[in-house]
Amino acid sequence: MIRAGIVGGTGYTGVELLRLLIPHPEVEVQVITSRAEAGERVDAHFPNLRGVCDLTYTAPDPQALTKLDVVFFATPHGVAMDSAPELLAQDVRVIDLGADFRLANPEVFAQWYGMAHRAPDVLREARYGLPEYYRETIAQSRLIANPGCYPTAVILGLAPLLEAGLLQQETLVADCKSGVSGAGRTGKVNLIVPEAADSVSAYGVSGHRHRPEIEAILAEISGNTIELQFTPHLMPMIRGIHATLYGRLRQPMSDTNLQAVFAERYAQEPFVDVMPFGSHPATRSVRGANVCRIAVHQPRPGQVVVLSVIDNLVKGAAGQAVQNMNRLFALPETAGLTQIALLP
Amino acid sequence: MIRAGIVGGTGYTGVELLRLLIPHPEVEVQVITSRAEAGERVDAHFPNLRGVCDLTYTAPDPQALTKLDVVFFATPHGVAMDSAPELLAQDVRVIDLGADFRLANPEVFAQWYGMAHRAPDVLREARYGLPEYYRETIAQSRLIANPGCYPTAVILGLAPLLEAGLLQQETLVADCKSGVSGAGRTGKVNLIVPEAADSVSAYGVSGHRHRPEIEAILAEISGNTIELQFTPHLMPMIRGIHATLYGRLRQPMSDTNLQAVFAERYAQEPFVDVMPFGSHPATRSVRGANVCRIAVHQPRPGQVVVLSVIDNLVKGAAGQAVQNMNRLFALPETAGLTQIALLP
Amino acid sequence: MIRAGIVGGTGYTGVELLRLLIPHPEVEVQVITSRAEAGERVDAHFPNLRGVCDLTYTAPDPQALTKLDVVFFATPHGVAMDSAPELLAQDVRVIDLGADFRLANPEVFAQWYGMAHRAPDVLREARYGLPEYYRETIAQSRLIANPGCYPTAVILGLAPLLEAGLLQQETLVADCKSGVSGAGRTGKVNLIVPEAADSVSAYGVSGHRHRPEIEAILAEISGNTIELQFTPHLMPMIRGIHATLYGRLRQPMSDTNLQAVFAERYAQEPFVDVMPFGSHPATRSVRGANVCRIAVHQPRPGQVVVLSVIDNLVKGAAGQAVQNMNRLFALPETAGLTQIALLP
Amino acid sequence: MIRAGIVGGTGYTGVELLRLLIPHPEVEVQVITSRAEAGERVDAHFPNLRGVCDLTYTAPDPQALTKLDVVFFATPHGVAMDSAPELLAQDVRVIDLGADFRLANPEVFAQWYGMAHRAPDVLREARYGLPEYYRETIAQSRLIANPGCYPTAVILGLAPLLEAGLLQQETLVADCKSGVSGAGRTGKVNLIVPEAADSVSAYGVSGHRHRPEIEAILAEISGNTIELQFTPHLMPMIRGIHATLYGRLRQPMSDTNLQAVFAERYAQEPFVDVMPFGSHPATRSVRGANVCRIAVHQPRPGQVVVLSVIDNLVKGAAGQAVQNMNRLFALPETAGLTQIALLP
Repeated sequence: MIRAGIVGGTGYTGVELLRLLIPHPEVEVQVITSRAEAGERVDAHFPNLRGVCDLTYTAPDPQALTKLDVVFFATPHGVAMDSAPELLAQDVRVIDLGADFRLANPEVFAQWYGMAHRAPDVLREARYGLPEYYRETIAQSRLIANPGCYPTAVILGLAPLLEAGLLQQETLVADCKSGVSGAGRTGKVNLIVPEAADSVSAYGVSGHRHRPEIEAILAEISGNTIELQFTPHLMPMIRGIHATLYGRLRQPMSDTNLQAVFAERYAQEPFVDVMPFGSHPATRSVRGANVCRIAVHQPRPGQVVVLSVIDNLVKGAAGQAVQNMNRLFALPETAGLTQIALLP
Repeated sequence: MIRAGIVGGTGYTGVELLRLLIPHPEVEVQVITSRAEAGERVDAHFPNLRGVCDLTYTAPDPQALTKLDVVFFATPHGVAMDSAPELLAQDVRVIDLGADFRLANPEVFAQWYGMAHRAPDVLREARYGLPEYYRETIAQSRLIANPGCYPTAVILGLAPLLEAGLLQQETLVADCKSGVSGAGRTGKVNLIVPEAADSVSAYGVSGHRHRPEIEAILAEISGNTIELQFTPHLMPMIRGIHATLYGRLRQPMSDTNLQAVFAERYAQEPFVDVMPFGSHPATRSVRGANVCRIAVHQPRPGQVVVLSVIDNLVKGAAGQAVQNMNRLFALPETAGLTQIALLP
Repeated sequence: MIRAGIVGGTGYTGVELLRLLIPHPEVEVQVITSRAEAGERVDAHFPNLRGVCDLTYTAPDPQALTKLDVVFFATPHGVAMDSAPELLAQDVRVIDLGADFRLANPEVFAQWYGMAHRAPDVLREARYGLPEYYRETIAQSRLIANPGCYPTAVILGLAPLLEAGLLQQETLVADCKSGVSGAGRTGKVNLIVPEAADSVSAYGVSGHRHRPEIEAILAEISGNTIELQFTPHLMPMIRGIHATLYGRLRQPMSDTNLQAVFAERYAQEPFVDVMPFGSHPATRSVRGANVCRIAVHQPRPGQVVVLSVIDNLVKGAAGQAVQNMNRLFALPETAGLTQIALLP
Repeated sequence: MIRAGIVGGTGYTGVELLRLLIPHPEVEVQVITSRAEAGERVDAHFPNLRGVCDLTYTAPDPQALTKLDVVFFATPHGVAMDSAPELLAQDVRVIDLGADFRLANPEVFAQWYGMAHRAPDVLREARYGLPEYYRETIAQSRLIANPGCYPTAVILGLAPLLEAGLLQQETLVADCKSGVSGAGRTGKVNLIVPEAADSVSAYGVSGHRHRPEIEAILAEISGNTIELQFTPHLMPMIRGIHATLYGRLRQPMSDTNLQAVFAERYAQEPFVDVMPFGSHPATRSVRGANVCRIAVHQPRPGQVVVLSVIDNLVKGAAGQAVQNMNRLFALPETAGLTQIALLP
């Protein structure tokens, strides 16, 4: 059994990790930390876990964590970078669901996250945890930067075309819609039902932290500089990301060939579902499941629209983290990740 | 492997049966029928099943069904009663998620459902599929009447007190709130988002078909006539039933003893969770899970309020049906039913 | 023109007062206070007011308020009681939308609100601002206790029957459902979309502050002691209260006569709509409007169910406050209150 | 008083016209038709109108309509074109909220709406009812094509830049999000709460009828051919459209100058609100109000993002129709249209 720990267990990615790891056949969660709730039972905060989880929150204690095989950080940026070096030194694998290791360049990190990177050495060792593009490097790594939720949806939707050099790079638009759980489990006025239900608005239009992450990874995959217009929107729903991706082809291409690019690229992927050409995936079709569904359109010759949906807490966070863990420990990649989406 | 069939596979209880039966270790769904969609793939209608379900709808064909071990009817009332006799004659077990066999008295059925009962003989053989109260009779039966969603929540909440003769029978109130999926997957104007979202209303206040069902079963369990004020409400949510149950004690009773009635009655039940006295269960704590969570209150001496929540599609329909199937085939009652509720 | 002020202008009742008072033909809002937002434009916080409101928040300043004709307190309990005596002394009318003056007995106030009442003298002068029952005393008063949202819905629904002595007093149940705006504009985790959308739960079952308010007023109206089972629930919607009220008749009564009790009692009321017997009012039918819609049912002889719906922010708060202001200044009671509910 | 009629009074635009016209100081609605509901009171279908509307639906009767001053068609396409010629001949003004007269070219109409245009003569006379761009032609017309909901939001957001020749025409993207009321008051399965709540999806990506309308009007305003990538999405909310509009500047331009283009263009417009540069308008800020709020961004030099929000039933339908009516009858354009948006 893999002994696992979760740092920051009172947020949505923390409880989602528990939902996935408790029934996982090869894992036992032994430690879950929360500074604020130390000493309290986890299921007192998350009653969906009553009867299946006997854990109690503990205060973060580096000593306790070093006895584990893997530690998940479900924390805001700035936390994992302070603990990862010691854990790695003790041969504990680290999977950071926060942003500390997503940007390979520490200066870019500093620019977007407003703080100097405090662990640039281990940053060099971190691998981007998008298995569909970095499967091999993940397996050989000890420190995984679990991708952001928007980047997961956008990269999976655009990479097949960019990888093949089919798109004009300067016309990319990613118009993204996210459920409110993407903002975290936090008592902000703008997230309460009377403010955020029955309304739609954009945010961060002038610049969002996920843009440099997307651009850097897509540049790496495609071998070219990428400039993306990226607009996130807050949706009146709980879970789900819908990315509407716009690009223009360099050369004319039939719908059939366009579809084939995606179908072939993801033919062996257990967690990417390429739908029939011209489909309209709904976020509810992935609710609770570790899957990205993708559909391709060509409304007019040369104009490509890719629709990509994920559950931001599963394929966009905790599910992908478990997928990465499976890679780290040479388990079948689908272990513990076969939940069917909850519809309706 | 148990060979299972689903009649009426385009509604919400049908697709929920698939979500539960596909990963069930002892079951293979071999037939799913739909008159309207015969010939179409199931996952074209329910994209959450893409990649895990290769079934195609077939037209209802009695012949095909008789080769199965069990048939689930996820149909409106009036369908199962016409097929059940033949299936039983061929030694196929029948679990009806509709209302055809819930009311033991065919005249009461006729009164509330507006049609004569066309299979009164097999009706006598039917057993009410609430395992917490009829576990043994279920195991010995061939025909299960799966309880209504409201009755499941109300009976599990009131029966421990009535069974013990603790409540005045003439003061019972069941104020029930249901998500819109309880109304079925049907294109009615009053169910569309602009009508049913962001609004609350009662319906059927003058009389609802689930009232005679609840009253009959509670009378059977308690040995007394029961008269219930039952008011269903439509909630602006997808899944979930919240039953708020009011009664008055015959004799004064401490909070501790009141709690003990529930704790003891359900101590061995895998799918009933008695929460700490004075809790407030939320429907989201059971979303997608086969569990009923119950909390007891005594706001003033002698006044009892029981809160009982279920997912109407799981413990209130498909999950309970699978639980009954497990009983029929002597499987562990929890087989295939260990999903953790999806929160948030 | 009536010069009006609003203390506590950043909450929902504050902004709702502005929505109603800005187009009011006889009122000019001259002052709106907020300690936290002093110096900021109101429409920067509430963009629905852009173009119609040039006000800027000021810090609370007793001096500025004494130059007004009326001051609305849209504040938590404990604020109005400290300012009201001085304002009344300066001949400024006070309408408190908080709870400071709703309970005539200062000891009951202390028991439920956890603080001694600091203005017991002016408390004696306060009048309960439910015009349908206290129209005359309101007109002669200087200090109005605007009713709570739940009490408005419950009292309007039960009082006609209790006033006429038709109900058994010991069997009253008020099962109430409220939209999330009833909890205020405050950043609490339990109110954010991922927690409070798509879920239903009860709260305060063991005792809620609105219960003593309802019981005291209904006792005053009926001349008898009243004991109510009162259960509030949080609904996944923004605005609206649905009160489902249960009682038992002392004597048999026809549906027609039952309906007549309500029809006659409210025949002249501009803001109470008695619907046809057996109707099911939806909260959306009063969204944004200063109206209470009521429907009566008698599911079984002797069992009465009254359904009463209001918009908690209008008839349950700001609209009723304006109605009271109209009474105080001898304006037509409907002045500024003719908005039609927004449906859908 | 202007005598008005509404053809097709059971849909959302019909009831919204009533909400706006009933309190309008210069209008009396005398006729409202519905084939299906003839003989029934309007307020039996729309209880928000109880107490303010005594109208009864009548069967469509050309004779009755010719006695009016203006007739609003709140009907699907294909209805108004059959009645308009006769009404115009009788000197009745016609405002069509459907699509019959929006596309000046009858062949384009036939292509997108699947039917030949049956009134090409009066089509020539029709004027596009977007007062911000066609104010004078509207005043001189007798037949108004009320714009589609998406076109209203998109054109108001893009036209100032295109009119001034500032954008590259071949890079325009309009990513649009609509509440479910935009799909009409119709019992379709895909619109019910369990399908359309808590989920987001695109639709009509390969081609939507509003695209040729937008392109034709923007071409007319700008004097250039326009090619737009237009993607509509269904949002889990009731009302509101959020258009996220992407373009690229021909020449570098400062944020200040960009903002000035909008501020100046709409300086005198009562129903277009240009927000401060870099704002994020929410659809709820226009709920129930006849206003379009617009905010401009320049995330990177040369990349322009315009956010434009309306209430699809008000500025996107009934409110704009009343605005057009005010123009036709030389009333102040804001008559009857001063409702403040309902927030929260």
